[in-house]
Amino acid sequence: MAGGLGSVFLLTDYGHTDEFAGVVRAVVARRAPDARIVDITNDVPAFDVRAGALALTRAVPYLGAGVVLAVVDPGVGTARRAVAVAARAADGGPLHFVGPDNGLLCWAIDEVGGARAAAFLRAPAGSSPATFDGRDVFAPAAARLWQGEPLTALGTTIDPDVLVRLDAPRCTVTAGVVEAEVLWVDRFGNAQLAARPGDERAAGLGGDLEVVAAGRAHNVRRVSAFAELDGDALGVFTDANGHLAVACHRQPAAAVLDVHAGDTVLVRRRATAREEPQG
Amino acid sequence: MAGGLGSVFLLTDYGHTDEFAGVVRAVVARRAPDARIVDITNDVPAFDVRAGALALTRAVPYLGAGVVLAVVDPGVGTARRAVAVAARAADGGPLHFVGPDNGLLCWAIDEVGGARAAAFLRAPAGSSPATFDGRDVFAPAAARLWQGEPLTALGTTIDPDVLVRLDAPRCTVTAGVVEAEVLWVDRFGNAQLAARPGDERAAGLGGDLEVVAAGRAHNVRRVSAFAELDGDALGVFTDANGHLAVACHRQPAAAVLDVHAGDTVLVRRRATAREEPQG
Amino acid sequence: MAGGLGSVFLLTDYGHTDEFAGVVRAVVARRAPDARIVDITNDVPAFDVRAGALALTRAVPYLGAGVVLAVVDPGVGTARRAVAVAARAADGGPLHFVGPDNGLLCWAIDEVGGARAAAFLRAPAGSSPATFDGRDVFAPAAARLWQGEPLTALGTTIDPDVLVRLDAPRCTVTAGVVEAEVLWVDRFGNAQLAARPGDERAAGLGGDLEVVAAGRAHNVRRVSAFAELDGDALGVFTDANGHLAVACHRQPAAAVLDVHAGDTVLVRRRATAREEPQG
Repeated sequence: MAGGLGSVFLLTDYGHTDEFAGVVRAVVARRAPDARIVDITNDVPAFDVRAGALALTRAVPYLGAGVVLAVVDPGVGTARRAVAVAARAADGGPLHFVGPDNGLLCWAIDEVGGARAAAFLRAPAGSSPATFDGRDVFAPAAARLWQGEPLTALGTTIDPDVLVRLDAPRCTVTAGVVEAEVLWVDRFGNAQLAARPGDERAAGLGGDLEVVAAGRAHNVRRVSAFAELDGDALGVFTDANGHLAVACHRQPAAAVLDVHAGDTVLVRRRATAREEPQG
Repeated sequence: MAGGLGSVFLLTDYGHTDEFAGVVRAVVARRAPDARIVDITNDVPAFDVRAGALALTRAVPYLGAGVVLAVVDPGVGTARRAVAVAARAADGGPLHFVGPDNGLLCWAIDEVGGARAAAFLRAPAGSSPATFDGRDVFAPAAARLWQGEPLTALGTTIDPDVLVRLDAPRCTVTAGVVEAEVLWVDRFGNAQLAARPGDERAAGLGGDLEVVAAGRAHNVRRVSAFAELDGDALGVFTDANGHLAVACHRQPAAAVLDVHAGDTVLVRRRATAREEPQG
Repeated sequence: MAGGLGSVFLLTDYGHTDEFAGVVRAVVARRAPDARIVDITNDVPAFDVRAGALALTRAVPYLGAGVVLAVVDPGVGTARRAVAVAARAADGGPLHFVGPDNGLLCWAIDEVGGARAAAFLRAPAGSSPATFDGRDVFAPAAARLWQGEPLTALGTTIDPDVLVRLDAPRCTVTAGVVEAEVLWVDRFGNAQLAARPGDERAAGLGGDLEVVAAGRAHNVRRVSAFAELDGDALGVFTDANGHLAVACHRQPAAAVLDVHAGDTVLVRRRATAREEPQG
């Protein structure tokens, strides 16, 4: 079979109130009647390319074969290009990505081993400046890729290295201190950091820790699971995406820390003098 | 095959928090196991028939064959009728509509060329006054239509001209002025107007414009695409549904104008004296 | 065919903003490529096991064959067990349930006639304490059950009677008074009570009623359908799930009563002296 493999995965900032995502689904359904459509999320914060890129990166290891149709596109209508990228899903099947060339796709493609080929999409015939690109450009392209058409049929192939990239998540390690960007605050208030356990080890962290956020230091426990926390205690744990994250049993940790995605926090060895037993 | 073509398209005001839309999906899935279910949106503002009718009208040109199951139904339990309508999708395939006869469907049916036949649905056997009509009336009817049953099997055929219609969107054109209803404020704050480029031409508009909304006049630029705007400038452009819309690069235009769906705005030639260069 | 019957039904508190539900869908799609995935709702209030259990109980009579994948799991990472339960859908087809053993599933299983078999799920190989159980435990188990694998392949079979149960909804009947828990406030503000028409009859209620909520008594009409109400009048009716519910035509009844899910209200005979005609 030339195509028809797997799902079309949708990730956008279209929200759920308007019919935007529904119309994109309908276009895919009409042009690829046998494709399963899987919504990853359509509620990326409006125009927040970085948040969309991070969500896609967290999701992509779990996607099978198919086509990722991702649209968070503050530059719609500008000279930014529309791209399609060929890659491999984590399970080895073909996985294509379609979306704006604004960095939205870059980390997810890295996560599955990099691009094998890429193309700038041709604008659809008769398109006006006020197109709804999800409906008029990206959905048709995703359906065609799902059906097995090659990248070369959709536009001009390019060197994947020219694709736009976002600034890498910020994480710096010094002795006793990890300084990291807050990547994501989830529905439950957990604050995921750009740091990973390897950064923690490189900083020589261990024992009692504190997190400095919004100008205040908070004692935190290093726990192996959220469930070890109780009461109002804050904890640092390795989350299900392999990142360090700050959690709290009873309250949203991000609210306790007063942090949002994009802020910077420190995780460091706790000043312990005041807590050492007087020996 | 008598039926089984295309998708069942869902548009409701059931929201996403309760299980209403999920139960409707489950009923369709059980009774039409091979039908694809495509959510257009389930977050039409509660009881807002007009908003639902407009969203469906914007979406319907992009739907393929299948059945539209639309429910925004403040009159549930009253004498309002439940209807099914046969029409043609934009691509020529059969497209049925099922929903309350309260005007929700009228413009979408117009948009795809009008009704070819219609029927009032028979109430299901054993139904109580407190039915959940989406679950008990509309979903079963949609599944039966999808399976290929004729309208006559579902109820009494009627002249489609007797179906309830909503008041047409308000748009009046005079020399130099287009007065139009705000049809829709989308997630990004763009304000779609009932006016179209033909109205603008009929009013002889050109050059510098202003929009009067909520008692205030705002300078706007006539642009061909959202992307031409920058800073806090307001612009009028032809949107992806072919309507005039007011947008702003940096802020939600509807907030700047202080308008909501249903309000009336003027688009008119700008009083230019104060801005003409002194020659 | 050993498996492959029906749908995988998703009910979680993952919300729609993060990609949690999307990743679970993707895992099911990859492991059970022919399963239809039906979202019941993913917006159960965070960690609210009781609200999730009630929503699932309201939905389950309308589900056909398949697998219910339900996750509202404040105890993730603790000693709470993951379970799979075999039952029968209302239409007689096989219906399995997968989720945490915290009571979430108990009433829905009762509703479809009880468990026929149950098993504690084995933890997946190589799992860490910080797993995302929906993705790593429940979705794979749901896909395997959908494919026709027996419970015994997924873990250790148990007596279904050992499964955790929630406290039953509170409803007490005395002469002239029904005292009942508010089970649910829906999107439209209707307040569903734990009481049913049989409770009303047992209390000998009839004629004029009042509802006491948040320390205040409100006159209510006993109506057979929401549509009989007008203006600001409150009404009690039998809702589409067979419960007594309080509704109001013009406003959200729960706001008028100042009640939330979990509160207790009285429905009782109205003190009528002041309203009797002076004969």
